[in-house]
Amino acid sequence: MSQKTWGGRFSGETDRRVERFTESISIDQRLFRHDIRASQAHARMLAAVGLLTASEAESIVTTLTEIGQRIEKGEMAFRIELEDIHTHIERSLIETLGDVGRKLHTARSRNDQVITDVKLWVRDAIDELDRLLLGVQRAYLELAIAEKDTILPGYTHLQRAQPVLAPHVFLAFVEKFQRDRERLQDTRKRVNILPLGAAALAGTTLPINRELVREQLDFASIAMNSLDVSSDRDFLIEFVFDLSLIAVHLSGWAEEWILWTTTEFQFIELPDAFCTGSSIMPHKKNPDVLELIRGKTGGVIAALQQLLILVKGLPLAYNRDLQEDKAALFSAFDTVAASLELAAPLIQQSKLRRESIESRLEDGFLDATTLMEALILQGVPMRSAHEAVGNLVRLCEQRRCRLMDLPDSEYASLVENVSAVRSVLGVKAALNAFRSVGSTAPVQVESQLERWSKQLA
Amino acid sequence: MSQKTWGGRFSGETDRRVERFTESISIDQRLFRHDIRASQAHARMLAAVGLLTASEAESIVTTLTEIGQRIEKGEMAFRIELEDIHTHIERSLIETLGDVGRKLHTARSRNDQVITDVKLWVRDAIDELDRLLLGVQRAYLELAIAEKDTILPGYTHLQRAQPVLAPHVFLAFVEKFQRDRERLQDTRKRVNILPLGAAALAGTTLPINRELVREQLDFASIAMNSLDVSSDRDFLIEFVFDLSLIAVHLSGWAEEWILWTTTEFQFIELPDAFCTGSSIMPHKKNPDVLELIRGKTGGVIAALQQLLILVKGLPLAYNRDLQEDKAALFSAFDTVAASLELAAPLIQQSKLRRESIESRLEDGFLDATTLMEALILQGVPMRSAHEAVGNLVRLCEQRRCRLMDLPDSEYASLVENVSAVRSVLGVKAALNAFRSVGSTAPVQVESQLERWSKQLA
Amino acid sequence: MSQKTWGGRFSGETDRRVERFTESISIDQRLFRHDIRASQAHARMLAAVGLLTASEAESIVTTLTEIGQRIEKGEMAFRIELEDIHTHIERSLIETLGDVGRKLHTARSRNDQVITDVKLWVRDAIDELDRLLLGVQRAYLELAIAEKDTILPGYTHLQRAQPVLAPHVFLAFVEKFQRDRERLQDTRKRVNILPLGAAALAGTTLPINRELVREQLDFASIAMNSLDVSSDRDFLIEFVFDLSLIAVHLSGWAEEWILWTTTEFQFIELPDAFCTGSSIMPHKKNPDVLELIRGKTGGVIAALQQLLILVKGLPLAYNRDLQEDKAALFSAFDTVAASLELAAPLIQQSKLRRESIESRLEDGFLDATTLMEALILQGVPMRSAHEAVGNLVRLCEQRRCRLMDLPDSEYASLVENVSAVRSVLGVKAALNAFRSVGSTAPVQVESQLERWSKQLA
Amino acid sequence: MSQKTWGGRFSGETDRRVERFTESISIDQRLFRHDIRASQAHARMLAAVGLLTASEAESIVTTLTEIGQRIEKGEMAFRIELEDIHTHIERSLIETLGDVGRKLHTARSRNDQVITDVKLWVRDAIDELDRLLLGVQRAYLELAIAEKDTILPGYTHLQRAQPVLAPHVFLAFVEKFQRDRERLQDTRKRVNILPLGAAALAGTTLPINRELVREQLDFASIAMNSLDVSSDRDFLIEFVFDLSLIAVHLSGWAEEWILWTTTEFQFIELPDAFCTGSSIMPHKKNPDVLELIRGKTGGVIAALQQLLILVKGLPLAYNRDLQEDKAALFSAFDTVAASLELAAPLIQQSKLRRESIESRLEDGFLDATTLMEALILQGVPMRSAHEAVGNLVRLCEQRRCRLMDLPDSEYASLVENVSAVRSVLGVKAALNAFRSVGSTAPVQVESQLERWSKQLA
Repeated sequence: MSQKTWGGRFSGETDRRVERFTESISIDQRLFRHDIRASQAHARMLAAVGLLTASEAESIVTTLTEIGQRIEKGEMAFRIELEDIHTHIERSLIETLGDVGRKLHTARSRNDQVITDVKLWVRDAIDELDRLLLGVQRAYLELAIAEKDTILPGYTHLQRAQPVLAPHVFLAFVEKFQRDRERLQDTRKRVNILPLGAAALAGTTLPINRELVREQLDFASIAMNSLDVSSDRDFLIEFVFDLSLIAVHLSGWAEEWILWTTTEFQFIELPDAFCTGSSIMPHKKNPDVLELIRGKTGGVIAALQQLLILVKGLPLAYNRDLQEDKAALFSAFDTVAASLELAAPLIQQSKLRRESIESRLEDGFLDATTLMEALILQGVPMRSAHEAVGNLVRLCEQRRCRLMDLPDSEYASLVENVSAVRSVLGVKAALNAFRSVGSTAPVQVESQLERWSKQLA
Repeated sequence: MSQKTWGGRFSGETDRRVERFTESISIDQRLFRHDIRASQAHARMLAAVGLLTASEAESIVTTLTEIGQRIEKGEMAFRIELEDIHTHIERSLIETLGDVGRKLHTARSRNDQVITDVKLWVRDAIDELDRLLLGVQRAYLELAIAEKDTILPGYTHLQRAQPVLAPHVFLAFVEKFQRDRERLQDTRKRVNILPLGAAALAGTTLPINRELVREQLDFASIAMNSLDVSSDRDFLIEFVFDLSLIAVHLSGWAEEWILWTTTEFQFIELPDAFCTGSSIMPHKKNPDVLELIRGKTGGVIAALQQLLILVKGLPLAYNRDLQEDKAALFSAFDTVAASLELAAPLIQQSKLRRESIESRLEDGFLDATTLMEALILQGVPMRSAHEAVGNLVRLCEQRRCRLMDLPDSEYASLVENVSAVRSVLGVKAALNAFRSVGSTAPVQVESQLERWSKQLA
Repeated sequence: MSQKTWGGRFSGETDRRVERFTESISIDQRLFRHDIRASQAHARMLAAVGLLTASEAESIVTTLTEIGQRIEKGEMAFRIELEDIHTHIERSLIETLGDVGRKLHTARSRNDQVITDVKLWVRDAIDELDRLLLGVQRAYLELAIAEKDTILPGYTHLQRAQPVLAPHVFLAFVEKFQRDRERLQDTRKRVNILPLGAAALAGTTLPINRELVREQLDFASIAMNSLDVSSDRDFLIEFVFDLSLIAVHLSGWAEEWILWTTTEFQFIELPDAFCTGSSIMPHKKNPDVLELIRGKTGGVIAALQQLLILVKGLPLAYNRDLQEDKAALFSAFDTVAASLELAAPLIQQSKLRRESIESRLEDGFLDATTLMEALILQGVPMRSAHEAVGNLVRLCEQRRCRLMDLPDSEYASLVENVSAVRSVLGVKAALNAFRSVGSTAPVQVESQLERWSKQLA
Repeated sequence: MSQKTWGGRFSGETDRRVERFTESISIDQRLFRHDIRASQAHARMLAAVGLLTASEAESIVTTLTEIGQRIEKGEMAFRIELEDIHTHIERSLIETLGDVGRKLHTARSRNDQVITDVKLWVRDAIDELDRLLLGVQRAYLELAIAEKDTILPGYTHLQRAQPVLAPHVFLAFVEKFQRDRERLQDTRKRVNILPLGAAALAGTTLPINRELVREQLDFASIAMNSLDVSSDRDFLIEFVFDLSLIAVHLSGWAEEWILWTTTEFQFIELPDAFCTGSSIMPHKKNPDVLELIRGKTGGVIAALQQLLILVKGLPLAYNRDLQEDKAALFSAFDTVAASLELAAPLIQQSKLRRESIESRLEDGFLDATTLMEALILQGVPMRSAHEAVGNLVRLCEQRRCRLMDLPDSEYASLVENVSAVRSVLGVKAALNAFRSVGSTAPVQVESQLERWSKQLA
């Protein structure tokens, strides 16, 4: 009998190069726990419906547990001629149990077995990511609390715009990661549907009971169209999309902090343990971890691209192309999980360089917009106020001074109540003038810190 | 005063080539209805909090309605020096109302205005797509009912696998599009949060009431971090991802039906009105619409990539790069909406070529797996049954016959009850033998048809 | 007779929605000059081989010229039911010439006509890009000469690394764009092969003379396999790849200069005419053009992906999917050409802020590596010298001083000849110490300026 | 002394998770041969310019050779705390030679070392691919000669179009792969330029002689701008683009042959050794290798995307993001090389199913276009001839007959010389009527077979 699961109709051996080209054991071995769990549920169900005896099922379940322990200990030698983890486990089972082992694959195809394993794996991966994202949110919250009163320049177009509280900046990322967590929960609903039972593509003529499998594997419901199951990778692609957005969020943070570590910005000090040096330049302390997090984003986005290209234009049902899904899936997950795992301690151990930040805080006209709004409150139409402040800024640039340095006469030509207008000048005054919901107003930020402290507790 | 919304601090004019390069009016003019609606809500709120008088707000609301009507009729000339739709509308307002018009932009930045307009637009687009997807599902359901008893070869690896009922094939796509609709509803939750009030990036010092705007624009809640809002395009990217999966589903259908129209398959007849000919070959009837649906998928996937590349590595908050989001968004939506709009009638008006399908239905050993399962039911271990049937198939290929053509002796060497085994041979018998939930068993398919008939009613 | 070029075998009209979905006239009308040129060459050849009379060919050529002039003047109304520019022109010809016009399409398919037009267009586009790239190189060279002696901090990991001459920075981009030009020339070789004559896919039974067409259209050679031609878009994809790398180069430049315009860097002053302001923040001067150049890169990269996705997995020969190639092609070209067109004057009109740069030039230990090399020249093994300078830098950070501020005693413990080592300290001394070929050594940079001045003259 | 190459200025150890996250030894170990070769050349040059003694260089060269042998034999344990292959080799050298080993990295940075190694590797990879592509071309040529007289239906839109000779189909792919080979040669020119000597980013103050290194490593020239070198990955991205087009060509072939193996087409018989079966369906013989070649294309295209995303928007010079380039590079190369390696024997061992092909060759009006051209030769204007044949085809469809089955009267209404027209009817006659250069005309195909036989010899 052939080592393959399908040798019967073939004459001659598979070309060795073909085995190397078509194997997936190097990729899918990490599914072994989920494969064993799914096979045990399948075996118990087969016994319940009479396709196995109780003692056959019992032997299979026990032996599978033992096989899992052997793999866990690194005692199983993986061989490419056995193609994938599913064949390795089944072959091992047959070696131990003989004909009883040969019955496990009853009413099941490798394709629906694979997709069941992958769904179980993705479900776990979602839960793991949720935990990691929460860790990063908490790290940000901690930093936000530690820097509660630090004022930073806020930027648009990377040009200084308006003053913002540091916690307002950090909570912006908490919001982004919260959306990521919600998105993962939505994806989880579509993952959590049992595929097993689709068999080859059309279901089976054997009297299986899919509900019994669903219960054991804790799926919420059962997929109702076998052809759909056999061709579907939507849940996996959606998951990798979720990963892409997380990676993009991380890349934005990384970019910002890389800027902040420059000699020019000097806003933050990263922990030595998260930086590396140069093989040639002895003075360098480089933000490598941040750069790699930013750089690795490309790999995650590309994994999504790979998956969409993979499934585009495939006719029903299973096509072997789909085997390529797992390398992309695992790679995207591993990258994002590792990035999140590093992000949390890196955030926690970093410190804003308050003195350095404050020393140049009055540069860049951060109070100009607040001044304009003060004019509006004095009755100047918005567009006219905008024009007027624009002119004042131009005047300041010519005189190399700040708005607060202009004489009263400049303001008196615009409004009667000059002191009301002057009272918002300077970065601290400007910051304290904010009041809208969701703004950087200290009271607003305080209330958001409280909200998140509760929510992430 | 400059025509721009921001001329004050600038000396000299903008380079004309720069205007051409930076304009977005050619792209964003389609947002005009949403822009007007959002501005009217904003004006009413400004009046409610005392930043406008009631009569100023009234004038603004009325004039905006008139401007909308003028645009609707094509009476507004778009000029690239006015940059975008928002500036066109505001400039038009100021031309009519003077200083009152100059007050509309109070406590609002163009960026949060844009993102509010886009969210309103995406929310509508989601609802439109839901309607279009439902239309395609219904078309499929209709065809499924019309072809209720037609048997098709089912494929894996594009090789004949097992027989399936035509409605089972069509309902597989109904399932896929159902997931697309659910995904859109999940996205909608994240779209349906009011951004307006983030102002430039930090909120505002003016006493706005965001809740009043939320109510008028029917958003479910209010975004709580202004920096997050100013930098966020997640909702838009998630929407384009949803579009990508819809496009991928359409591409799979297109691929399959293109195959079905070949001289070799001859499974389906497309309506003449959805095909085109060749400029040189007079006999051609080409499935162009299907090919274009398949081909255009690449553009949708590319739009998603464009957006992910766009936002990767951007620091907080708004950066002008983000302006590029709308071209990708609109192009992806337009492609998918147009494809869905054509898909529904194309599906409805196509006919399976039953005679042609049936004439070759016994080719390709569609009953082999059912035979194997019959052996299993007679007690043969699955792997042994698989091997045995593989050998029978090889025998048939040598003899150029079908499984049902083999003599009893071939079966008698495997099982005692030969007639039980023979009873599942032949495509119709094999099909009728199915029984698992979600399978192609006629009773299962019937029940799915009923389920969908209710659900899509 | 149908308006279509292929009505004969069809009963019934094309669905109007199908016309809208399948039309390409909105995209391909810009090919009209190339289409006319190619058709005129084809007509002359048909006459030369006797498939047209001389006077028929003459009428066709003349009428085509007139049609071209009409289109040039905007006098041709484009209608989607006439599908594409090729049909518009042929229909117009037939309206004028009747049966003679009906002969033009002899021995030609629309597909090889399209691909010939596109090749002619791409060939022109390459020449245009070469001109634009040269313009940007010259702008850089000009700026490099103007800033010949300005020293800038050089960066790796965005951390200050070693001092570099400003022209060394600018010439790095000249090198990159030079490679882009060379790549375009290589692509041009593969573009410059005549496809016309492939006819539908298999060639023709008519006695055409492809060499006569080749000569007239100035192609270097003739494609020798009609099936290859009918399915080939390699040249077009390769061209869009070239565009992608140009866009990537532009994006790196844009990123760098965006940083340079920040309040924190203050390295460069952009011309007002290439910046824009904010609708809400009156003080802003934003580097929008640079941000858009960076942002638009995503669209070019996405166009390349779209094309690769488009052609992946298509069987021979022509498939309608390929029609989508032109939108991606034109969009990528337009973006890159517009970016290059703006880049040249933007570079020319920008000025380094020398005073601001110099004021912080001694920050960041730019001389540390040169110090290490000085130690090596005194016989310290490289790795030991690296370690030693690393320790000195740490000492400086503790003492908040520069390397030159350390006492002789610190150097004396490392080498005997302290003065040799001290002589390279400080940014100017460090810069002047460089000597390797291709380095920032003043004499090396001078020689590169001369080389490029000659080469780009 | 730290194990790192850069410990001096750091206090405290690197976080272990950071080491795992930043290591590249798991990826770049395959560069060891090129690293050793480049280091040996560097050492010899250092001796030539007096930075090493002759005997120091000799020791280094010899020890590096020994280290290479140890790695070759698998005797070097790779440890992530040693980051990359370069550090492993240098550390090993220092362990053996002490201070002499510490001198090797003189006047060299890890970044220019890496890029030199990678260029050497890519140069070898190009040569390997050229060999593999030639192998596939020869396999195609062999099959083309074996099937010299077999007629196949030619397709456009996957609809039967005109008859073509099998060798014409196969040579279309030979053309495509020839372009791939030419593209690789063009890329090789841009690879074959020595980067070493850029040092950290600005060159070096040490008296190196780059020409001596160039000669030893057989580069054609020397890169002349150190900042360009330190930031450049163009050559690598261009190479992966070349790989993408090769993959796309392979995917088209795979798609076509997957179709050809279906029950419906039955055009080809693949060797058993290149197919696999099903774990559940005993009769299946699946074209897995072809499906995987098609599916893996997505990974290659995605690798290109990853690289373009990686470099987009990076400022000068080296950024750690760039480390991610190698995983994408190696993965794309491995996939394409493995696919090509399998493609050659798969093509050679496959056989057209001539009988099956011929049995349905008269289906699908393959002679319709030839008929139209025959009418043109009799003086009917092309567009009128097209219309007339379209009508005849419609008549045939109603009568379920072929063009040759129509009575003379149908033709007599179109032309006087009915027999001239009838003489091209039927697939063989139609095929033999071809005559244009590059067409499927037997004499043309014969001449192409001769051309390629010489060129690929």
